[in-house]
Amino acid sequence: MEAHSLNLIPLCNGSPRKCETVCVFGTGDFGRSLGCKMLQCGYSVVFGSRTPKASGLLPKGAEVFNHREAAQRSSVVILAVHRDHYSFLQDLTEVLHGKILVDVSNNLKLNQHPESNAEYLAQVVPGAKVVKAFNTVSAWALQSGTLDASRQVFVCGDDSTSKEMVMGICRTLGLSPLDQGSLLAAKEVENFPLQLFPMWRLPMYIALSLTAFLFLYCLVTIVVFTNVKDGQDVSFRIAISIPNKVFPIVSLMLLALVYLPGIIAAILQLYRGTKYSRFPDWLDKWMLCRKQLGLVALAYAFLHVFYTLVIPIRYYVKWRSNNFIISQIKNNKTSSFETMSAWRGDSYIALGILGFFFYVLLGITSLPSVSNVVNWREFRFVQSKLGYLTLVLCTGHALIFGWNKFLYISQYKWYLPPPYMISLVIPCVVLAIKLILITPCVDQTITKIRQGWERNAKPQKMENYEVAKTTETNESKAMV
Amino acid sequence: MEAHSLNLIPLCNGSPRKCETVCVFGTGDFGRSLGCKMLQCGYSVVFGSRTPKASGLLPKGAEVFNHREAAQRSSVVILAVHRDHYSFLQDLTEVLHGKILVDVSNNLKLNQHPESNAEYLAQVVPGAKVVKAFNTVSAWALQSGTLDASRQVFVCGDDSTSKEMVMGICRTLGLSPLDQGSLLAAKEVENFPLQLFPMWRLPMYIALSLTAFLFLYCLVTIVVFTNVKDGQDVSFRIAISIPNKVFPIVSLMLLALVYLPGIIAAILQLYRGTKYSRFPDWLDKWMLCRKQLGLVALAYAFLHVFYTLVIPIRYYVKWRSNNFIISQIKNNKTSSFETMSAWRGDSYIALGILGFFFYVLLGITSLPSVSNVVNWREFRFVQSKLGYLTLVLCTGHALIFGWNKFLYISQYKWYLPPPYMISLVIPCVVLAIKLILITPCVDQTITKIRQGWERNAKPQKMENYEVAKTTETNESKAMV
Amino acid sequence: MEAHSLNLIPLCNGSPRKCETVCVFGTGDFGRSLGCKMLQCGYSVVFGSRTPKASGLLPKGAEVFNHREAAQRSSVVILAVHRDHYSFLQDLTEVLHGKILVDVSNNLKLNQHPESNAEYLAQVVPGAKVVKAFNTVSAWALQSGTLDASRQVFVCGDDSTSKEMVMGICRTLGLSPLDQGSLLAAKEVENFPLQLFPMWRLPMYIALSLTAFLFLYCLVTIVVFTNVKDGQDVSFRIAISIPNKVFPIVSLMLLALVYLPGIIAAILQLYRGTKYSRFPDWLDKWMLCRKQLGLVALAYAFLHVFYTLVIPIRYYVKWRSNNFIISQIKNNKTSSFETMSAWRGDSYIALGILGFFFYVLLGITSLPSVSNVVNWREFRFVQSKLGYLTLVLCTGHALIFGWNKFLYISQYKWYLPPPYMISLVIPCVVLAIKLILITPCVDQTITKIRQGWERNAKPQKMENYEVAKTTETNESKAMV
Repeated sequence: MEAHSLNLIPLCNGSPRKCETVCVFGTGDFGRSLGCKMLQCGYSVVFGSRTPKASGLLPKGAEVFNHREAAQRSSVVILAVHRDHYSFLQDLTEVLHGKILVDVSNNLKLNQHPESNAEYLAQVVPGAKVVKAFNTVSAWALQSGTLDASRQVFVCGDDSTSKEMVMGICRTLGLSPLDQGSLLAAKEVENFPLQLFPMWRLPMYIALSLTAFLFLYCLVTIVVFTNVKDGQDVSFRIAISIPNKVFPIVSLMLLALVYLPGIIAAILQLYRGTKYSRFPDWLDKWMLCRKQLGLVALAYAFLHVFYTLVIPIRYYVKWRSNNFIISQIKNNKTSSFETMSAWRGDSYIALGILGFFFYVLLGITSLPSVSNVVNWREFRFVQSKLGYLTLVLCTGHALIFGWNKFLYISQYKWYLPPPYMISLVIPCVVLAIKLILITPCVDQTITKIRQGWERNAKPQKMENYEVAKTTETNESKAMV
Repeated sequence: MEAHSLNLIPLCNGSPRKCETVCVFGTGDFGRSLGCKMLQCGYSVVFGSRTPKASGLLPKGAEVFNHREAAQRSSVVILAVHRDHYSFLQDLTEVLHGKILVDVSNNLKLNQHPESNAEYLAQVVPGAKVVKAFNTVSAWALQSGTLDASRQVFVCGDDSTSKEMVMGICRTLGLSPLDQGSLLAAKEVENFPLQLFPMWRLPMYIALSLTAFLFLYCLVTIVVFTNVKDGQDVSFRIAISIPNKVFPIVSLMLLALVYLPGIIAAILQLYRGTKYSRFPDWLDKWMLCRKQLGLVALAYAFLHVFYTLVIPIRYYVKWRSNNFIISQIKNNKTSSFETMSAWRGDSYIALGILGFFFYVLLGITSLPSVSNVVNWREFRFVQSKLGYLTLVLCTGHALIFGWNKFLYISQYKWYLPPPYMISLVIPCVVLAIKLILITPCVDQTITKIRQGWERNAKPQKMENYEVAKTTETNESKAMV
Repeated sequence: MEAHSLNLIPLCNGSPRKCETVCVFGTGDFGRSLGCKMLQCGYSVVFGSRTPKASGLLPKGAEVFNHREAAQRSSVVILAVHRDHYSFLQDLTEVLHGKILVDVSNNLKLNQHPESNAEYLAQVVPGAKVVKAFNTVSAWALQSGTLDASRQVFVCGDDSTSKEMVMGICRTLGLSPLDQGSLLAAKEVENFPLQLFPMWRLPMYIALSLTAFLFLYCLVTIVVFTNVKDGQDVSFRIAISIPNKVFPIVSLMLLALVYLPGIIAAILQLYRGTKYSRFPDWLDKWMLCRKQLGLVALAYAFLHVFYTLVIPIRYYVKWRSNNFIISQIKNNKTSSFETMSAWRGDSYIALGILGFFFYVLLGITSLPSVSNVVNWREFRFVQSKLGYLTLVLCTGHALIFGWNKFLYISQYKWYLPPPYMISLVIPCVVLAIKLILITPCVDQTITKIRQGWERNAKPQKMENYEVAKTTETNESKAMV
């Protein structure tokens, strides 16, 4: 190898050498689309088909052969065929020996088969080097060039050289390969495109059950109660008034639930005196879905904002306001201006707007493209400092809204507290404990623990020289 | 090649070897910026200039020679010179023989010259390997390091090894090269930076013509009609009232137009009994700009929301409301509360807010960084399921807004229907056909067709074993 | 090297060869997380520890040795140890000779030590090839797989082959390495994760000082003035009324400040008759933070919008409106409808909404993932054309809001102009100068200058053949 070629090699990637040939078994939509894309990117493509002469609609420049002939022409065979038909490959074992067999298949259900399609393929053709890839890529996306959904291609396989070749093909096609390890990962890779927002499931369940519970609660204390007591039909409140009580309550509770696990983690660490024991599973799960919880909370806050802003254009509100004025005139009364009410009303609204502003800011920062351009310190500043600020503002908004209502027995319908009180429990608990945790003496202990100090550490242990970046890491773990 | 060097090679990319030299012809802004960036990333850079001694302002560390000497020092020559001056290269044909010549030039107009600059360059210096690259990169972006606009570099050329080298340089500079194929693609690559939102053109035309038409329609039926009939001047309605009729109508029509092509495609497939014949061109084009159509619809909905929310602070509205109360008092009338009106008003508003919420959700999901992290199933769930939900909510919003107005002849000014009726035609048609399409019997046939079944298929055709991922693909094609 | 292996090499990257071993010194959080991730991605990992037998919690599959033995097993040693403990490496100088030593450490403060940690390491172990990397990556992110914050890894080092190897490891782990040059850059790389929004500092300072000044100004002219003159307590206006005067004023001023530096640059270029002399430093800094200025302006506009929309639900406003109606009835007055007021009020509101709409559009376009998919022409169209349109709309909004108030002496409290007038100074100046700059004769001269023409150029200079892309570049520099 001379200096000159050495010079070239590091620059050589992303593009196929001339004449590199890839074989595609199966002339269905996906096979054709992939073949077409590969032709555009400079590969030679041969199709393997059971009926090579009857295959219409193939991309220009591709050749069609029967499976055996096609496989002989390339060291890489992409299998765009249903799992149910893999058995036909048994006749080709000899030809496929040592070749790279790429399994692109997906299933219709999670865990449809006991072993993944790729592992099954490896059993059917034991001599081939099976690589799982392309299963997340859509034929439609390849054809149209609009890769709106993910460009990510999860690749796994037992032979790294084969994996590398397939990843190289991905890159040439403009896709982003991600190595997922050995073929054991194939099951997970095959399950991936069947998932429907797995991280959003828990937050959505929590949000929807809270919503359902609070909706019923409001229905009983407002519509049913009024009907029973006064015989009045206020069912029309179901459309806007009640949702506009439920949404802010759920939003505030969810926001508090974003910060509760961090608090629990800190208490656990304080109690255990070490950070080197695992958190319980439920806490880990909870921590991992905090971002989603926060975004659902933002969605509820968004709805609350718009349900509130339409208040003055509602028929009921306009009617009540008109009637109020008319009755005042008839009774020759004038209401005097109360500075206190003005202060209370305005500061309650102002806190709400500021809270919503920071809510939206947090939401924008959690957009992948925004969080990618901030460093860890900035990300933590926004998500932790601004997050707590949002919680303080929104809790203040609810407290001033409630004001001294809790003193009046008329507010407790059928001895039930008004709904807004329910929303204040978790946020106040979170903020109170947080306040204790950031007092200097407690804070110092937590910081020490997070830097690796252990209360019951054996004296010979001197591991604290390895704490590079520990502080950052654990704070982020517990506080974000 | 020993095992050890093998060990190293796969890790070697992205960074130039020591002493790798790149030559840049031209010391203009772009040449200097590119040279400077390459120096920072570890390349040696030599500039070729007509007046090597008079070249000021060059980046530190770069050397300047005349063209011939500079070219001799490197195997890659980047040509940062206007197309009009390419002729001077004819004298250098010998030196440039076998070298990689990178054309970075752009034109001022689409299709300014019969052949692309890169192809022209290949004619001028026939012995060189011409590669088109960097034309989408801005000198200012390179200098400031803030690559706000695209990092994408479109690369094309006839020699793949040369293309690979140039793509390697791109990667080292932190840019993302995209292989566009042979030099024939240069024309397209050169046209790219001259384009101004090509995908947005059709949606914008549709939106603007609808807006213009409806604005005139409202102007006639509201301002002109009132003037002619009552001699009243309501021209001030042009500022807010009329736009706030036009925006929601256009928004709803555009949203329905997003889902109409999918419906038409399904009907076509049902009628033809196969999915293997191409859709007409206009349908393909329409399908490709659905995302843009939807985003324009969102923009109109956004405007409608804010035009609606300001209603209570408008002078006219406050004046009318005050006058209404005063006249009621003078006539000693009180309007009784109508539960029906409250229900109608509130549910119409609530549907509007929920519709807007899902509209915004759809908009957020179509942000590139968000759609990149969802898989196909999730993307389709949002864009198809939530999309139809949005359409249903917004159509319901308009229907309840209209209520029974269509029964009253007074609404038909000069026999013209009130504008909101116009907005309901397409959405109702789309939803009605969709309802038929998702009835089990029709749905089964469509699914069968989309899985590759053909009504008039020859019996010997057994291609249905190749349907890997077909269902997903075609559904997404037709339904997203 | 045969053709076949050549065929393979370009495709080989992103994945480690079998048996490639990486050594990690330090079994702290970061070391363990990195080791774990590398094991998942196919590397063999050995840990070096002072107390190899006492190291618990290590990832499965990793081996632990003392430092010497561990280092012997790999050519790459990742040092996950505090800088304070680097001295122990002096005993290992021999073993580490020629090996790649990766410094991942961070400091607690900016410029904590005179030389960077990586440079210090290179002094401690002179025979090793030191590479700085991974310092921006969080252990927590590596563990959880949720790389919410940056995937970017800044890599620097004096030996390019070593740097390449480390960058290869980064890629295999799914991170994006960015070459930052020689080890001299280590200081900057180490400072990076300690920065807190450096580009946002200047805009935030400007915005906050303007806010503070205007808040005081409004406080004096509204609350104090009313108190002194009429003895009335209007302190409740601090919550909403005054912020809603301050926010729009600051927003408009900041928006004008986004476009002012472009104007100054154009005037400077016109005056100097050349573009080849540098702008003063303050102008360069100002230009670089225009995006951030614009986004802060958008935040203020957002607050203004919501503070405005809540007006009708405020207690004070409702009280005043009711009182107004009641007093009108008592005095038997009716206010007649003024078309002029309706026009003025509605167009002022309409301009505001349209301005906000374009504001939001500009904000969305500056999201990294959106600006990445537009080309330069499109980016400039949005940021320059639509930006000026926004400025015109918002200035018009403020002008119509002010109307003829400036004529009435009662508006000048204590001879101070009403606050909205202050907001109009910069925008009007910017728009007036811009109007002059786009008149054909001035515009031509600027274009000529930006294409490289110099008023006092020496005749022998013929550099204008190198202006490839100059126009685009400089316009963008001056106008965006």
